[in-house]
Amino acid sequence: MGEARRITAAALIIGNEILSGRTHDVNLKYLGVELNKLGIQIREARVVPDIENEIIEAVNHCRSKFDYVFTTGGIGPTHDDITADCVAKAFGQKLIHHPVAEKMLRERIIKMGNEVTEARLRMARTPEFAELLINEVSGAPGFKVENVFVMAGIPRVMQAMFGAAVPFLERGVTMISNTIGSYVAEGTIATQLSLLQDDYPDLDIGSYPFYFDGRPGSNFVLRGPEQDRILEASERLYNLIISLGGKPVEGGVEVPTTKTD
Amino acid sequence: MGEARRITAAALIIGNEILSGRTHDVNLKYLGVELNKLGIQIREARVVPDIENEIIEAVNHCRSKFDYVFTTGGIGPTHDDITADCVAKAFGQKLIHHPVAEKMLRERIIKMGNEVTEARLRMARTPEFAELLINEVSGAPGFKVENVFVMAGIPRVMQAMFGAAVPFLERGVTMISNTIGSYVAEGTIATQLSLLQDDYPDLDIGSYPFYFDGRPGSNFVLRGPEQDRILEASERLYNLIISLGGKPVEGGVEVPTTKTD
Repeated sequence: MGEARRITAAALIIGNEILSGRTHDVNLKYLGVELNKLGIQIREARVVPDIENEIIEAVNHCRSKFDYVFTTGGIGPTHDDITADCVAKAFGQKLIHHPVAEKMLRERIIKMGNEVTEARLRMARTPEFAELLINEVSGAPGFKVENVFVMAGIPRVMQAMFGAAVPFLERGVTMISNTIGSYVAEGTIATQLSLLQDDYPDLDIGSYPFYFDGRPGSNFVLRGPEQDRILEASERLYNLIISLGGKPVEGGVEVPTTKTD
Repeated sequence: MGEARRITAAALIIGNEILSGRTHDVNLKYLGVELNKLGIQIREARVVPDIENEIIEAVNHCRSKFDYVFTTGGIGPTHDDITADCVAKAFGQKLIHHPVAEKMLRERIIKMGNEVTEARLRMARTPEFAELLINEVSGAPGFKVENVFVMAGIPRVMQAMFGAAVPFLERGVTMISNTIGSYVAEGTIATQLSLLQDDYPDLDIGSYPFYFDGRPGSNFVLRGPEQDRILEASERLYNLIISLGGKPVEGGVEVPTTKTD
């Protein structure tokens, strides 16, 4: 068996409503978790407005830099849904009515007792050489062009389209992680934590501080491809916390999410 | 009184934990809402990993393109907190121990009965010409360099630092918005909605579809600087929905947030 390589991805969240704060994006977290299960790491995410040249620029930047790009949003039938147009332009492809998507849409429109109009067929538009991401949830499929996967913004629909994208994706190194928390303040442990990181360059050791119950503490996440190395480093961290007078909490200290609205 | 101009901003969310899906960012939404109150529109957001050249590139891109840049995350005392270093490099400034921040930190360390160490003073590091974002919540302040505001990732701390940033910010055109929802499917209203948008180029009319109670519908958001124009367009949209057999819902149809975890 050959060694699995690191596979990278970018997430492109398209929509004014995310930038204005009206809508709280939940797709990035979903993609981060699900892609990691496949051994694919998101290395950059961008949120861009519904503006053609911004979307084109972001698609072209991300598709050249990362193995995969996942876009969410902007593929509905209204005037502000311009993702398909932008992806076609980014690839220099014509925008067409994809025959299979159009057939699916027509059948659905008729089944719902509606008239087939150009507006209703708008969701069948894809770049010329797109492949569809057909799924059970949405009547109008998402699509992929080369390494760019174009999905809806509605989380339930996006998730179904992502399911259709999975068979296209190459598997890489799955990162596994272990979390240890304690009420030792970051400033107290920082120097020795840094030395631990130096000893384990194959791991990514993150420190996520919190204030909870009026006390400062931190959750430490050890992340890497090899279980043995994580266990070894975890044991050292465990002992380090004890030596600093702390009580290590396996799995991390549970801190309630801060509500901002 | 001169006409207020449009002021733009970028948000730069720094941290591996957001990209891996471990942590769900809540700062972007907060910034979007609060900046809009000041008449400042976020036009792009980026989530970048804890990697020096990625952060430097993003800071430099955003600070040249937008009026303001707000970064969150990576200013703690541990080895993975490299935002101050990166911002200094982005501006070509030396990284120093800011005298005021260091004084504040030293007093706090001593008050807590701890020893003053280099690691504990790490949070006093800023670029040479930074101004501090002093606040009640965090012992170690955030800082600004020119148009870049550097804040913590912990939401409560970020919000306090943002409060300290507000006096530095120029006010622009405040965008106001009105939301009207209905169970009219997007495909049914799309053509006429597009004509409405054409008639009101000064407004940004967005359509945010949902499936709720087994029925498709959409919330339409009209956004712009002038109340009169929004009211006028809203009335036309209201009548349009009725003409299509729908029932307009002022404020929009409340759809529960889709949980993804």
